Amino acid sequence: MAKTNPGRFFEDYTVGETIHHAVPRTVSGGERALYHALYPARHALYSSDEFARSCGLPASPLDDLAAFHVVFGKTVPDISLNALANLGYAEGRWLKPVYPGDTIHSTSEVIGLKQNSNGKSGVVWVRTKGRNQRAEVVLDYVRWVMVRKRDFDAPAPEVVIPDLAPALAASDLTIPDGLNFTNYDFTLAGEAHRWGDYEVGEKIDHVDGVTVEEAEHMMATRLWQNTAKVHFDIGSRPDGRRLIYGGHVISMARTLSFNGLANAQIIAGLNGGTHANPCYSGDTIKAWSEVLDRAETSAPGVGALRLRLVATKGGEAFTLKGEDGKYLPHVMLDLDYWALIPL
Amino acid sequence: MAKTNPGRFFEDYTVGETIHHAVPRTVSGGERALYHALYPARHALYSSDEFARSCGLPASPLDDLAAFHVVFGKTVPDISLNALANLGYAEGRWLKPVYPGDTIHSTSEVIGLKQNSNGKSGVVWVRTKGRNQRAEVVLDYVRWVMVRKRDFDAPAPEVVIPDLAPALAASDLTIPDGLNFTNYDFTLAGEAHRWGDYEVGEKIDHVDGVTVEEAEHMMATRLWQNTAKVHFDIGSRPDGRRLIYGGHVISMARTLSFNGLANAQIIAGLNGGTHANPCYSGDTIKAWSEVLDRAETSAPGVGALRLRLVATKGGEAFTLKGEDGKYLPHVMLDLDYWALIPL
Amino acid sequence: MAKTNPGRFFEDYTVGETIHHAVPRTVSGGERALYHALYPARHALYSSDEFARSCGLPASPLDDLAAFHVVFGKTVPDISLNALANLGYAEGRWLKPVYPGDTIHSTSEVIGLKQNSNGKSGVVWVRTKGRNQRAEVVLDYVRWVMVRKRDFDAPAPEVVIPDLAPALAASDLTIPDGLNFTNYDFTLAGEAHRWGDYEVGEKIDHVDGVTVEEAEHMMATRLWQNTAKVHFDIGSRPDGRRLIYGGHVISMARTLSFNGLANAQIIAGLNGGTHANPCYSGDTIKAWSEVLDRAETSAPGVGALRLRLVATKGGEAFTLKGEDGKYLPHVMLDLDYWALIPL
Repeated sequence: MAKTNPGRFFEDYTVGETIHHAVPRTVSGGERALYHALYPARHALYSSDEFARSCGLPASPLDDLAAFHVVFGKTVPDISLNALANLGYAEGRWLKPVYPGDTIHSTSEVIGLKQNSNGKSGVVWVRTKGRNQRAEVVLDYVRWVMVRKRDFDAPAPEVVIPDLAPALAASDLTIPDGLNFTNYDFTLAGEAHRWGDYEVGEKIDHVDGVTVEEAEHMMATRLWQNTAKVHFDIGSRPDGRRLIYGGHVISMARTLSFNGLANAQIIAGLNGGTHANPCYSGDTIKAWSEVLDRAETSAPGVGALRLRLVATKGGEAFTLKGEDGKYLPHVMLDLDYWALIPL
Repeated sequence: MAKTNPGRFFEDYTVGETIHHAVPRTVSGGERALYHALYPARHALYSSDEFARSCGLPASPLDDLAAFHVVFGKTVPDISLNALANLGYAEGRWLKPVYPGDTIHSTSEVIGLKQNSNGKSGVVWVRTKGRNQRAEVVLDYVRWVMVRKRDFDAPAPEVVIPDLAPALAASDLTIPDGLNFTNYDFTLAGEAHRWGDYEVGEKIDHVDGVTVEEAEHMMATRLWQNTAKVHFDIGSRPDGRRLIYGGHVISMARTLSFNGLANAQIIAGLNGGTHANPCYSGDTIKAWSEVLDRAETSAPGVGALRLRLVATKGGEAFTLKGEDGKYLPHVMLDLDYWALIPL
Repeated sequence: MAKTNPGRFFEDYTVGETIHHAVPRTVSGGERALYHALYPARHALYSSDEFARSCGLPASPLDDLAAFHVVFGKTVPDISLNALANLGYAEGRWLKPVYPGDTIHSTSEVIGLKQNSNGKSGVVWVRTKGRNQRAEVVLDYVRWVMVRKRDFDAPAPEVVIPDLAPALAASDLTIPDGLNFTNYDFTLAGEAHRWGDYEVGEKIDHVDGVTVEEAEHMMATRLWQNTAKVHFDIGSRPDGRRLIYGGHVISMARTLSFNGLANAQIIAGLNGGTHANPCYSGDTIKAWSEVLDRAETSAPGVGALRLRLVATKGGEAFTLKGEDGKYLPHVMLDLDYWALIPL
């Protein structure tokens, strides 16, 4: 019997089952330092314990996207090892900050299945939850992937398509316990722009760019224990190129967005996201954002902005789709998230 | 007087002398995070404090190979700066786990000397011990290297060839205090295969591959404070290529072996090892294992597997040597070690 | 209104103003481990908590240059985003060690301004102070940069050129509280050479070299939250090459200087420094030092050496300037600093 993990195929999933993902992970200051080395991360709340305390938190948490990557990475061997495409995200909610010393593990419930008409693959929807050592859910999100069938003759499962919110309402967001932006230090944070300074429809070109390297994206992807072969092995794809983990592009774009959104400190919700085109070593990632919505929250001094974050390689800022409605070839990422920002 | 370290030459060693290696090192969560970034490390005991506690340890230790690299790196300036070849390892025993906060230093006793017939070099055997801040030995191993003579006219020393065990017996292994696998969580560990599922002679192709980069192997080698010029300076070898530290290949192969040996958590003994062919940036490392022996241990629920671990770049899995008895050119590493695994 | 930071231009500075730089940073063992991965750092005081305690410190501090980079990185968005050249350093003093857990922020006072005769740029002198969470100054230095004007027609400011010491006197140096080298362990430190073994005028070729890679210098530069575009984006310069952060060259040269100056543990003063020629990925950095001065200090067993540290790419060791008085093209760095070393 082969002892290696071949990954699951489309016919191996059943709606309602819960998959317990392997390899829990304790995070430390090491993960935080590496996040700062791998990305131009400058949000003050995730850089300084003192700043975090001035905002009512006990210490500086692990970056919200680092927490996402840790939770996500664990799901890869069970969900996307045989995936043909990572199709989307929805209803992502950060429920508890992750602090150095916390141990994270992940589970995924299969919430939808739909075989493709070609009979060779299908779409699997999962709701993934990351939990800490106290069994508190720290992150909860839905993603769907297109997965190959092992046996093309396997019968198609009953079609179940989950009813997913096109976007979270601001009232669906969870604010970290104790968060208080009334004494927020805009000087230390790096920009003066507060919630009220952003208008719906406003677009921001984040200006800076980073040319990415093989060693960096592999270190990042390994750090999150993501095992997908295409990121590491030049022999795993016909073109001999390593595909960069989509999460690397997300983190690069989000950290680049500091320049213009320095006070959008906390990611509280993920409404959706599309990896529109692949990223390879040598590409120069730039980013732009659009304000999609604004809302107040129940926490003192804390507002919420719904933001589109677009990562590009080349092309004009603010261009997204062609006349055919398809993403332009220089668009790598179109992400829709909620951030918390001082009022 | 030149103040830089020229390294020792063959005639500088005396059987019986003990060399105290410089630069003690305190390890932290930073080294653990970097190990996870540099290698696809997924063994749960070294990833999660909670998992380690469920196995009777106080916390998650530093990976056994990271401990090896820390101890080994310190020996390079005194043992292998003028080495022509790293010839072998024997009788390696991990005696105490290394935890974040521990400070490690190394000593080596010269236990054998044999000048080569050409009069230009000789073989030096050393027994190296790594100790923590409580002077407890954490690792003990023998290695032998071929070292240049400074003065070809220096007299040959008396030949002393140490009597080394071809392999440790399972009863020679030290089990970490408190280790108990009776409540082992196979789901969190990532695979269901336990000690009884592995048969002597069984071979496992670990499937995954990693294409290695200059930046990665240099960061790894520096992290262990290994100063050998050939790893860093393109001017140090006639071909202008940087030779990758053999320990980088060991760690890559061992972490790739997770896929099929996820429960072989702890490295307890090193029986031998050969760096059969060099590794360079751009090579894609894959690995296969063979079960060489099995034994029970005195610790609750803990079995031992003796494993061959082979790292390759190209070639068919499970091929090792040609008809001439020599390693095939795609074989980079042939390692023989004992791992602890739940019964 | 554009929300991104365009950086300051020459006419935006006023003598006497204090700029509070953004993004405070809490450091941990992660930064220390990364410093060891990015540079061949081996000074024992910064590697081992036990060694540091034997020298009278409470634990091993963050490397002095890592502290410098943290403080310096914060100043980039306000001081050098539109800089044409980084012209010099003076009067740099390390006043308190930085320990894991400390949170650092920076301020700069503008102490000099001089418009260039072409009317398109000018020189800005700033005195930068890094402070920890107790508001203690940990580092204080002057640097001056040539900064573009936004509006060439803006009036020239009154010329103010600060009176800077060509070098600190040894009596200006601050010795870390409690430092005591009377029980210094030269074996663990790696070399036998003490203060008395170095003569003024002595030159040391540090022998070792490191060929640098894009991924490494970008990770290092990001770790210090230095945002200058030229280090990251191949589109930011006409030649499409990423310029390596000068501080990366400083740290590489300093750590290479271990081989011959292993006991010059602590950097206490920065007298001056010139980035003579640029460094690019693929360059092989080597280093040599010259003893410029010697002094005793008030701390037990602690002497001081004033050292020139030169980083090169190719060329003969100990060559520095041509007959025209200009730096030779292979010289990248000429640094003048005070180190503390056992008597």
